Amino acid sequence: MGSQGRFISFEGMDGCGKSTQARLLAERLKADGHDVVLTREPGGSAGAEDIRRLLVEGNPGRWSPETEILLFTAARRDHMERLIAPALERGAIVITDRFADSTRVYQGAARADLRDVVDALHQMMIGQEPDMTIVLDMEAGDALQRGLARRSGEDRFEDMGLPFQERLRRGFQELVRDNPKRCRLISANGSETEIAGRIDETVGSVFA
Amino acid sequence: MGSQGRFISFEGMDGCGKSTQARLLAERLKADGHDVVLTREPGGSAGAEDIRRLLVEGNPGRWSPETEILLFTAARRDHMERLIAPALERGAIVITDRFADSTRVYQGAARADLRDVVDALHQMMIGQEPDMTIVLDMEAGDALQRGLARRSGEDRFEDMGLPFQERLRRGFQELVRDNPKRCRLISANGSETEIAGRIDETVGSVFA
Ligand SMILES: Nc1ncnc2c1ncn2[C@@H]1O[C@H](COP(=O)(O)OP(=O)(O)OP(=O)(O)O)[C@@H](O)[C@H]1O
Ligand SMILES: Nc1ncnc2c1ncn2[C@@H]1O[C@H](COP(=O)(O)OP(=O)(O)OP(=O)(O)O)[C@@H](O)[C@H]1O
Ligand SMILES: [Mg+2]
Ligand SMILES: [Mg+2]
Repeated sequence: MGSQGRFISFEGMDGCGKSTQARLLAERLKADGHDVVLTREPGGSAGAEDIRRLLVEGNPGRWSPETEILLFTAARRDHMERLIAPALERGAIVITDRFADSTRVYQGAARADLRDVVDALHQMMIGQEPDMTIVLDMEAGDALQRGLARRSGEDRFEDMGLPFQERLRRGFQELVRDNPKRCRLISANGSETEIAGRIDETVGSVFA
Repeated sequence: MGSQGRFISFEGMDGCGKSTQARLLAERLKADGHDVVLTREPGGSAGAEDIRRLLVEGNPGRWSPETEILLFTAARRDHMERLIAPALERGAIVITDRFADSTRVYQGAARADLRDVVDALHQMMIGQEPDMTIVLDMEAGDALQRGLARRSGEDRFEDMGLPFQERLRRGFQELVRDNPKRCRLISANGSETEIAGRIDETVGSVFA
């Protein structure tokens, strides 16, 4: 990636455990003495968090898919410039809870033709991909249960129902198939500790 | 443009009289019995006005030029989908106080290479141009005086100084040279009524 740091993203459908596992991995790497930056999308920098509020608040029809993609890309550009790139340049490990793949898979699951719009905007305005993307995978119904147990209060993207979650699952599985070098599909079944163990193995094998 | 309506934009550097003349033209066309929609950018629709607040509030370094272009394009997409396109479809005359040319000229005046980014994003996400663009032209110093007399309270784009205003003037003049069919350069010197008379002539000659 042209930088000394390491850039890891967590991806997967709603409620599969991304935030939990991103936090646990950050804690372990910090305990090992690494300089670790844990962040999330949409958001992650001051400006991007302001854009996030436009994206997550309001009714589901507030933005068209195209406007939404532009806002996600604006937030990502800010996040990249202000937080991710400077951290990677100083050699830190950046762990982000969602990144561009979420936009690809969610918008693609909503309307297949949007995938090209997302990709074109990404190439033009962002460019960079993570060094490694951990995609957590489980039955859509089980993930939905986990998600419902939590509730975030940011409702625009929740309650889209089981069929949509199943499309997301397939979308993330295809993403891993299409990007075998960068993406790892990891089972999100089992306890937090079990999943963390699988992630440790995968991350360890790459960043030895 | 594939629609029955007419789409007119007002452009030009800060304080040259765009808002004043857009309003006066709208009033005249309404008095003549036309269905007229007067709007402005950034903003013009509910979502775009929310994005406008992100753009005009805060300190000058709040957004990088690239993030700013993405936000302008997101606002414009919303404005186009929710207000301009439906109005044109029902046959209205839409008059907008600034449109894509402002993004082209302002970003281009700030950094020449940004012009290509603005154009590429416009082509991908907006596409449409006005049927006619009125570019108001005057000495940068005189326009600055008019602008200072007014003060909007939205400070991010003000007080950029005389040399920048002069670059804007040249940028708008080049825009007219490069788009002779669509753009008309009109002197913004004189009284409001004199300028309104020039605009009437130009608009009348096209929408006879
Ligand atoms: N392995 C696990 N077993 C059972 N519950 C879990 C497990 N991991 C996380 N959870 C719980 O499931 C819920 C969702 O987890 P988390 O917030 O980490 O998922 P997420 O993928 O970040 O969700 P979202 O996509 O909505 O942000 C939380 O209440 C969390 O405590
Ligand atoms: N012909 C004119 N002669 C003198 N003053 C004018 C004239 N037209 C407008 N003004 C005044 O100049 C100020 C700027 O005009 P206006 O707000 O219409 O410009 P603008 O191009 O919309 O500015 P901005 O780019 O900042 O939005 C206002 O106070 C307005 O009343
Ligand atoms: Mg989460
Ligand atoms: Mg104005």
